[in-house]
Amino acid sequence: MDGYTLTHKTPTRKDFLDTADFDQSEIMDIINTARTVRSFIKGGGYLNSLFHKNLAMLFEQKSTRTRVSFEVAMEQLGGHALNLAPGAIQLGQHETIEDTAVVLGRMCDMIMSRVDRHESIEALAKYAQVPVLNGMSEKVHPTQGVGDMITILDHFPAGKNPSDVKVIFVGDATQVCNTLCDMTTKMGMNFVHYGPANHKIEDYWLEVGRKNNEKYGGTCIWSDNAEVLKGADFIYTDVWYGLYDKETPKEVYMADFYPKYQVNDEMMAATGNPNCKFMHCLPANRNEEVTDSVLDSPNSIAWDEAENRLTAQRGLVLYFGGVAQVTLDYIKRQKEVR
Amino acid sequence: MDGYTLTHKTPTRKDFLDTADFDQSEIMDIINTARTVRSFIKGGGYLNSLFHKNLAMLFEQKSTRTRVSFEVAMEQLGGHALNLAPGAIQLGQHETIEDTAVVLGRMCDMIMSRVDRHESIEALAKYAQVPVLNGMSEKVHPTQGVGDMITILDHFPAGKNPSDVKVIFVGDATQVCNTLCDMTTKMGMNFVHYGPANHKIEDYWLEVGRKNNEKYGGTCIWSDNAEVLKGADFIYTDVWYGLYDKETPKEVYMADFYPKYQVNDEMMAATGNPNCKFMHCLPANRNEEVTDSVLDSPNSIAWDEAENRLTAQRGLVLYFGGVAQVTLDYIKRQKEVR
Amino acid sequence: MDGYTLTHKTPTRKDFLDTADFDQSEIMDIINTARTVRSFIKGGGYLNSLFHKNLAMLFEQKSTRTRVSFEVAMEQLGGHALNLAPGAIQLGQHETIEDTAVVLGRMCDMIMSRVDRHESIEALAKYAQVPVLNGMSEKVHPTQGVGDMITILDHFPAGKNPSDVKVIFVGDATQVCNTLCDMTTKMGMNFVHYGPANHKIEDYWLEVGRKNNEKYGGTCIWSDNAEVLKGADFIYTDVWYGLYDKETPKEVYMADFYPKYQVNDEMMAATGNPNCKFMHCLPANRNEEVTDSVLDSPNSIAWDEAENRLTAQRGLVLYFGGVAQVTLDYIKRQKEVR
Repeated sequence: MDGYTLTHKTPTRKDFLDTADFDQSEIMDIINTARTVRSFIKGGGYLNSLFHKNLAMLFEQKSTRTRVSFEVAMEQLGGHALNLAPGAIQLGQHETIEDTAVVLGRMCDMIMSRVDRHESIEALAKYAQVPVLNGMSEKVHPTQGVGDMITILDHFPAGKNPSDVKVIFVGDATQVCNTLCDMTTKMGMNFVHYGPANHKIEDYWLEVGRKNNEKYGGTCIWSDNAEVLKGADFIYTDVWYGLYDKETPKEVYMADFYPKYQVNDEMMAATGNPNCKFMHCLPANRNEEVTDSVLDSPNSIAWDEAENRLTAQRGLVLYFGGVAQVTLDYIKRQKEVR
Repeated sequence: MDGYTLTHKTPTRKDFLDTADFDQSEIMDIINTARTVRSFIKGGGYLNSLFHKNLAMLFEQKSTRTRVSFEVAMEQLGGHALNLAPGAIQLGQHETIEDTAVVLGRMCDMIMSRVDRHESIEALAKYAQVPVLNGMSEKVHPTQGVGDMITILDHFPAGKNPSDVKVIFVGDATQVCNTLCDMTTKMGMNFVHYGPANHKIEDYWLEVGRKNNEKYGGTCIWSDNAEVLKGADFIYTDVWYGLYDKETPKEVYMADFYPKYQVNDEMMAATGNPNCKFMHCLPANRNEEVTDSVLDSPNSIAWDEAENRLTAQRGLVLYFGGVAQVTLDYIKRQKEVR
Repeated sequence: MDGYTLTHKTPTRKDFLDTADFDQSEIMDIINTARTVRSFIKGGGYLNSLFHKNLAMLFEQKSTRTRVSFEVAMEQLGGHALNLAPGAIQLGQHETIEDTAVVLGRMCDMIMSRVDRHESIEALAKYAQVPVLNGMSEKVHPTQGVGDMITILDHFPAGKNPSDVKVIFVGDATQVCNTLCDMTTKMGMNFVHYGPANHKIEDYWLEVGRKNNEKYGGTCIWSDNAEVLKGADFIYTDVWYGLYDKETPKEVYMADFYPKYQVNDEMMAATGNPNCKFMHCLPANRNEEVTDSVLDSPNSIAWDEAENRLTAQRGLVLYFGGVAQVTLDYIKRQKEVR
């Protein structure tokens, strides 16, 4: 593509609930939109593609990155995001999610929600007449996945093909791990979950990854053998326990993960790749799953990754708002004029 | 009117605290503004009538519909709404409502508030120098009333005059019932509160309704006799207990209302009118005051009613912001240009 | 200056943490920007100097004035403010302030924060790549200080020079007192803290004031002798106990301050100046530190002072956003065109 022409003029689905619902070409449409818009805005351009459009952000859990990135994305595109914080509305207390979905869909142009249970985001999507974006469920974290792939592409190892790239997720198989498994294999890369057997990624996701491999190349495995670290291009980790639910006692998860699965200088060295990048979805429990020395090292791209949450959200709201192509057309004309 | 000319170029009062403070012509100005703007925006038009104007939304109680509809309305009109959630500011803890009113009035262009006690909204209106809109008190729910009347007019029985139309509010005489009593009789319709004697609408409101009847036609009664259901054009209900205050035990209110005052298929059939519409201000306690079969039936206009909260708020902020007529003039010119 | 030309085209520091970090000329740049913009907006002018710019407002404590004034200021200048309320994000629970600073700095254009401890605002400033504004710490309240000085200049005693003006802060030496000490002496005025010895302003601040005196004129003292009231042009007070921290029992602080340090009609009379103005940062505990008779008197400028929070914030976000001079240039051209 020339950077300004999408494969899909409009989304094949109303909602963005799981990256696994979309094929490579559509994910690349979203990513290409996001990267082109980032470059335009960083260069001083202004967009109003979502002028007077309103995104309802419905949070069942606290959020920093997801909330701030969506709110800023909507503002930068001429629209607005409403912050419906945990406990702020009637939902779940005096009203069913289905009824809330219908009402929000009647008043707003799009809904983004972080939910406790994936069933809730599915219900929102079913009952709201407008696009629904999954801002994280216990199953997947698809907007994170888009931002992560943008970050991987931004730091793509020079001279390599996707089938030569190895991405290792270390530690607990969280929803971020699940989505990364889908996204990396969908791009034809090699994905490894390196973690203890009792926190192993579900076979369902390994199967998703292998189906992607058949179509796009790459490999997809789980392992608790440190040998798999060799040749890694990206080491990714997440906290070792659910941030939100009744917290697991620290001793329990430390016994499972520490010290073997802590990303520290030794683990980075074990990759044998001095250019191996470190990623983290954040927030981090510093010196638990990752040491300061790694998170704050020059090879850490965790902060670029955080910024790319914003990059991704702009692409997502434009694409599912049905205005990605017209926005790219506008940017192209602006560049020609200059 | 031609749809573009108001009777009142500016409001007769600074504040919108209770529909009963306004006569029919002024309520129709608000409703006509709201419906014209709805049609213009649904047709793809953009307005900036409240460019850079700020509405402070002050909530003493949680809200979904009121909050979302005002925030979206302000954004769609070029302005902004600040969400001052319950407990979010100093009000009532470290500052009196009078002092908060003065300060908000110095910084914002308009105030909307949902209050625990009607005295509070009166104090806000007295001390703030800017227009104050009542987003619900224990006494009345005037912004709901405007949206409800828009919904009734949207679904007005073909070939009937207002004096032929019967609107029945079933169940507990909530603030929504009070305002509906005023609004329907102000339009010259026939209003009935059908509920148990120990939850009967206050005589004050029946008196308000009868004064409206003298001026505009129609009738206004309370009854616990199911005979009154006959000939209804609209059946309206609300939850059976205060959503917010120390909740009445379920057994108590169930004993008062169930099964006689539940809106179910039998009650709808008892109207003898197959076109009788069902309304609910929402949120609903499904299968308490209304059955799924009625709320989800084709005759249910509860979702249109929810959407018309947004329609109403646009009309209200334009009218009390003093820019309703210029907005209608602008829309008229835009239509002529096309 | 002609009102449209700043001494400093851009700030000498990235962040606005404490007025004491800036000299008189720079504070006057901020104030002149703020007053010129106020006049332009009050005259019906519109500005978009911060078009699509996003300010993250991070609150560790509740706020009315600071939150509303910054949110309205950003909207009126074409931008947006995100309200990150106490407890609303991961900060302090699952994420360090340093990491949150980096992330917010990657997504937003500016950060304003009200913090429990001054160290926190310093950490935010150090780690965020964007300007950080201090929305109050236990040490200082610099945005309040700018609004207060604007209010003093608005009500400047006719025919007097700064070195003839006496500003007295009465009661507990709060962070508002500290900043007022710096601001008044930086303008070459005479500052007095009049309060009990066990709530005396720190010597550090008296020293700051005296250094200002050397440079700009005026005097700076603490006293518990009522004689100092004589000749006051401005009497300023604040509440007698921390609004937020584990509240001091009422008996304790009443014993310290009441009745000697209550600002009442007698104290106002003791100034011997019938034009002496009364100021309060609000919220007030009416009839504790100030009587109704004084707060609601014609000499009370506490409400102008509250409104000038908005005036000040506009100046601050423009100045630290690096667009103060271009905004003044634009306003100048607009006035010439008319």
